[in-house]
Amino acid sequence: MSKQLDAIMRPKSIAVVGASTKEHTIGSDIMKRLQEYKFNGNIYPVNPKGGVIEGIQSYTNITEIPGDVDLAIIIIPAKFVLSTLDECNEKGIKGICVISAGFKEAGEKGAQMEKELAAKLKEYGMRCVGPNCLGVVNTHPDIRMDGCFAETLPERGNIGFVSQSGALGGGILNILKDLNLGFAQFISIGNQADINAETAMEYWENDSDVEQILLYMESIQNPSNFRELATRISKNKPILALKAGRSAAGASAASSHTGSLAGADKAANALLAQSGVIREYSLKNLFSTAKVFANCPIPKGDRVAIITNSGGPGIMATDAICESGMQIAQISDQTREKLISFLPAAASVKNPIDMIASAPIEHYKQTLETVIADENVDMIITIYLPFLGLKDIDVAKALMEIKKAHPEKPVIGVFMTKSEFFTEISNMEVNMPFFMYAEEAAEGLKRLNEQRLWVERPEGKIPSYNVDKEKAAKIIKQSLAENRAQLTTLESIDILEAYGIRACKYGLATNEEEVAKLGNEIGYPVVMKMTSKTTSHKTDVGGVRVNIQSEEQLRAEYQDLIEKLTEKNLIEGLEGVIIQEMVKGSREMVCGIATDPQYGPMMMFGLGGVFIEVLKDVTFRIAPLTDVDADEMIKSVKSYELLKGARGTKPAQIDQIQETLLRLSQLVSDFSFIDELDINPLLISEKTGEGIAVDGRIKVRLEEAKEALGGCSCSCDCCSC
Amino acid sequence: MSKQLDAIMRPKSIAVVGASTKEHTIGSDIMKRLQEYKFNGNIYPVNPKGGVIEGIQSYTNITEIPGDVDLAIIIIPAKFVLSTLDECNEKGIKGICVISAGFKEAGEKGAQMEKELAAKLKEYGMRCVGPNCLGVVNTHPDIRMDGCFAETLPERGNIGFVSQSGALGGGILNILKDLNLGFAQFISIGNQADINAETAMEYWENDSDVEQILLYMESIQNPSNFRELATRISKNKPILALKAGRSAAGASAASSHTGSLAGADKAANALLAQSGVIREYSLKNLFSTAKVFANCPIPKGDRVAIITNSGGPGIMATDAICESGMQIAQISDQTREKLISFLPAAASVKNPIDMIASAPIEHYKQTLETVIADENVDMIITIYLPFLGLKDIDVAKALMEIKKAHPEKPVIGVFMTKSEFFTEISNMEVNMPFFMYAEEAAEGLKRLNEQRLWVERPEGKIPSYNVDKEKAAKIIKQSLAENRAQLTTLESIDILEAYGIRACKYGLATNEEEVAKLGNEIGYPVVMKMTSKTTSHKTDVGGVRVNIQSEEQLRAEYQDLIEKLTEKNLIEGLEGVIIQEMVKGSREMVCGIATDPQYGPMMMFGLGGVFIEVLKDVTFRIAPLTDVDADEMIKSVKSYELLKGARGTKPAQIDQIQETLLRLSQLVSDFSFIDELDINPLLISEKTGEGIAVDGRIKVRLEEAKEALGGCSCSCDCCSC
Repeated sequence: MSKQLDAIMRPKSIAVVGASTKEHTIGSDIMKRLQEYKFNGNIYPVNPKGGVIEGIQSYTNITEIPGDVDLAIIIIPAKFVLSTLDECNEKGIKGICVISAGFKEAGEKGAQMEKELAAKLKEYGMRCVGPNCLGVVNTHPDIRMDGCFAETLPERGNIGFVSQSGALGGGILNILKDLNLGFAQFISIGNQADINAETAMEYWENDSDVEQILLYMESIQNPSNFRELATRISKNKPILALKAGRSAAGASAASSHTGSLAGADKAANALLAQSGVIREYSLKNLFSTAKVFANCPIPKGDRVAIITNSGGPGIMATDAICESGMQIAQISDQTREKLISFLPAAASVKNPIDMIASAPIEHYKQTLETVIADENVDMIITIYLPFLGLKDIDVAKALMEIKKAHPEKPVIGVFMTKSEFFTEISNMEVNMPFFMYAEEAAEGLKRLNEQRLWVERPEGKIPSYNVDKEKAAKIIKQSLAENRAQLTTLESIDILEAYGIRACKYGLATNEEEVAKLGNEIGYPVVMKMTSKTTSHKTDVGGVRVNIQSEEQLRAEYQDLIEKLTEKNLIEGLEGVIIQEMVKGSREMVCGIATDPQYGPMMMFGLGGVFIEVLKDVTFRIAPLTDVDADEMIKSVKSYELLKGARGTKPAQIDQIQETLLRLSQLVSDFSFIDELDINPLLISEKTGEGIAVDGRIKVRLEEAKEALGGCSCSCDCCSC
Repeated sequence: MSKQLDAIMRPKSIAVVGASTKEHTIGSDIMKRLQEYKFNGNIYPVNPKGGVIEGIQSYTNITEIPGDVDLAIIIIPAKFVLSTLDECNEKGIKGICVISAGFKEAGEKGAQMEKELAAKLKEYGMRCVGPNCLGVVNTHPDIRMDGCFAETLPERGNIGFVSQSGALGGGILNILKDLNLGFAQFISIGNQADINAETAMEYWENDSDVEQILLYMESIQNPSNFRELATRISKNKPILALKAGRSAAGASAASSHTGSLAGADKAANALLAQSGVIREYSLKNLFSTAKVFANCPIPKGDRVAIITNSGGPGIMATDAICESGMQIAQISDQTREKLISFLPAAASVKNPIDMIASAPIEHYKQTLETVIADENVDMIITIYLPFLGLKDIDVAKALMEIKKAHPEKPVIGVFMTKSEFFTEISNMEVNMPFFMYAEEAAEGLKRLNEQRLWVERPEGKIPSYNVDKEKAAKIIKQSLAENRAQLTTLESIDILEAYGIRACKYGLATNEEEVAKLGNEIGYPVVMKMTSKTTSHKTDVGGVRVNIQSEEQLRAEYQDLIEKLTEKNLIEGLEGVIIQEMVKGSREMVCGIATDPQYGPMMMFGLGGVFIEVLKDVTFRIAPLTDVDADEMIKSVKSYELLKGARGTKPAQIDQIQETLLRLSQLVSDFSFIDELDINPLLISEKTGEGIAVDGRIKVRLEEAKEALGGCSCSCDCCSC
């Protein structure tokens, strides 16, 4: 894998097919950039008209080029690209970058051409960036390839950057320098006919030149592959992603709670969180975070010290640190004494450490050095506000000098000064990030802390439980035989039980005598619930009766239900009523499965009952879940506090709830055609603390289910289907 | 009022007391700034040593100055300030600005001096900015006063800016120019011995030179005065505030839910929201918003059009607009047709309008002009990404040209280009704000929209209900007579009823026979609740028994309670049990009163029951509430959806709940010593939709209550107390 992309990212020679002498064209700009940036190899312009282009004799055809060619950058009109690939193949070229537009993005004809392009790449064993892209860059001194038509020459740094939008990628390259952000490699993936973000991540995994990965994505091509790669790579290299198109996802037409609360962006969010990818919601934040990772080690903890020469920004930094969930460090006595020894009496040696406005450079240096040495401090924000006669850039240099000698802890400078300072800084080599505002620094430290927590997080495993898969399959087949995508409550609960999920005791009755018999067997109080093939929201039609205390009451409720349903013309689909043990508990949780068209099955957990869709205290993860995922899901909702046993309630069995989620995950792994599943409520028993499925609803994708279960949809035991 | 501050903000002559020839001192800098900025009046340096300072002959004493002096800027050591005031008085000076530090901020002695200073100001009828401040600025061409020692000369604009932190204020002045933000007047209020943010706001209310007001505050001096002023002024001039010190508020030791969920920052937040002040949480956002208000009219609606030359930023802008609660405008057919007539076929004429990368300046102009004219569009974001041969500054100028001819709608430019562009822009006169990122533009439009909603918001009034104030007073007195700050449940509910708040039917019983009698009177099912002078969280000790169906069960529960309390040694404080009608309803809300030491009584409303402190779906407003405040409170919590009648429940009587809040507000206005009050739950009756107080707890501040209720704390009817 690694080697395959070398032809593109580490070429020894490049053919520019469509090189041009015409100013302000891409064919001219690419030639200029390659030369200006001093590409470390041969450049062969190719143009059917021949002639000298940017001082180099061009070739009318690739095949005429005398030496070996690693990479062909193709800029000619789309219709000529396919035949050019044939020539590239003839010449033995393995690396391709198609800048030309006019493919998938340009309609049906272009899409067809892109298919043919992909087929040819496969046939010829080529790797390709594009089409419809901005190009590729590698700033390594041995390579120095600017194969890109952005305005600015690239700045050297440690970032591997993938952009799905070409124009945006160009815009970004233009501003990175201003932000003091260099990069190692840049790939504008364009239409992703071959190489995509995942390919790039894998390529950079063992490339020591790339220390952090930045992604601008509008879609994720293969979510499960992305998850696997990102989970692994992010343990060693931070991955920051801006995933745009959040609001584009239309309202879901799902019929379940889980489904209606899901939606594509929830899925993307879950996937990124599970994979250790730091998600940013604006380019501004993406770059700020990258700047912090480029210049800071991962901290050992979350205790932050603030050094300032002005009270106001110290307060603002404290606010921001606290609101980011980090701690204001408790400065040690030793540190405090040392600070007192050289700072003036008016200074405050509590955190924030206020050296007062007149603090000279020497105080900045001594204070930073003293605070870095404090074992109670993991990260530091140093604030500078202009003071008469003290130059911002001198203060910055002094701080960097101390930082150089103590690289072990993250230090961020907040310099509330003129933009000239930042311009000056952007032309210097720095070893710490500088921001204008305290909030930006706090945000950066928060990200460092998140990466620390991710690196420390155990990998987790996907457990496999002993379940009665056959029984579940048989129940589903029965439903398929009747062409029902929506399983009945009874079937749903039976499947949950087959998968070892604790559901409350129950039985189905279809007439009054059976009802009474079941009630007596289970023992009062009981709950009676209708189960119907046509009505799914039972509560809305009065189909749920709770706290039935006696046989007499049970009979009366049953008679009343039948009467009501007859009145409402809903008696037709009635399958019977479920008589259920009445589980006592005031805490109603919910868990379930929804299916995202792109990301596949995703799991939900959170607060259930009437609050579900109002309070939306739920969380999502893509299936399959690891034990760590399940644990995080439970702990990440606000109502986890309720589970822990707030205000005298019995603490819930967190392990058992975790297992419930994992067993559900196994269920949807075994039967991937399950489209939606709701356990609502998963009632927390006040007696045992168990989470008990009191109600369940499962819906499958009919055609897919039929196919998966062997084409045969009978429910017999005699055949092997 | 207006006239009073003129001596400081519009002086015709200034004495600089403490003017100095020594470089890099404040006494030298102030002299320089006044002259460099070309103050439009006489400058009189005063220094006991005499001599020429910055080219002007100085005076050894203020009284020697020949002409009239409006403003004295005082920079001498704190200990000489008081006597200088005497001399100022002798000279007839009415405007003072004390830059000198060493007052309240420097300990007890300084605080004493500040008190004397305040007394002198009053005695002499002077107005004063400071002490411990940075100075004052007025950029009006007729005045041109830079009486401030920031590094940069001020830039002219329409902002009135108040900073509580001196150093920070200086930092801010330094960067405002970079941000292309000018201001009209600046007041560094320092220790606020006299003039504070409120004084400044009032001064600027009718000053046409100030079109928006920016506040950096660490505290609010007189919350109710602030509220009155801000509510009125913000209807005409946007007020933006950064209130720092959010996390500084320690954990509250309150015993009620309302109290424990409150806290100083909630109070500040409530106050600002009620007063129409736009609260920002970072200086960065404060300035961004100011930049938008400086260059945009208030829109007529919330429909945003996006014009772009690149898809990616268009998507990001869409995301940001939707997440800010605004709408993506539906472009009219007419506009679409017109756009199609000149844009290339590859362009997208849906919103976002993607003119594609190669869009020339002419397309920018035509598109913006066409979209401004569309009646379906209220606000516009125009995005530019660098494209070969197109200069960013030219595009910006073209946009501003169109904007000039159509000033009626807000237009923001998002230019994802080099920082040189922003430097260039900052030296130009602009008529629209420019940002680097789409999210910044969306944030700005969101603020404009908030201001629109505030201006449209009815003023509201504080109603006065017929209540039985005497009865309430009598009940409280009874508690005071026993030295109880915490009223019993019974007393609390009686007070609520006296104020016309719907509480459920109840009675107090102190023995089993009374219990049974009451139960039979009220009718089953009933609830039994202990009421105790020593135990406040009844549920935790098993003191609440619900759904009691019969006299037999009621007697059994009562016996059991007495037994349990005896076991736990809690029988002592038992006052009896309340037998209550059992209101059926699944929706438990909460409302209450908490007292903030600085902001006074504040009201809470939200989701009650076990969820209160876990889900924190509550909102706060400072009392007294207007009807509009109460309405907004109800509608601003997530659980409002539950009140509307989600999933087949009965819609709650919103008006009645609103009245409940307003009656509570009246209660705390009448008895301002009420420290905490909880109605939890305020149960929504499934039968009527009413909010019914099922439980109530009131706590008073004992000493204050005794004083307020006339010193006498007896509960007799015979005296007039």
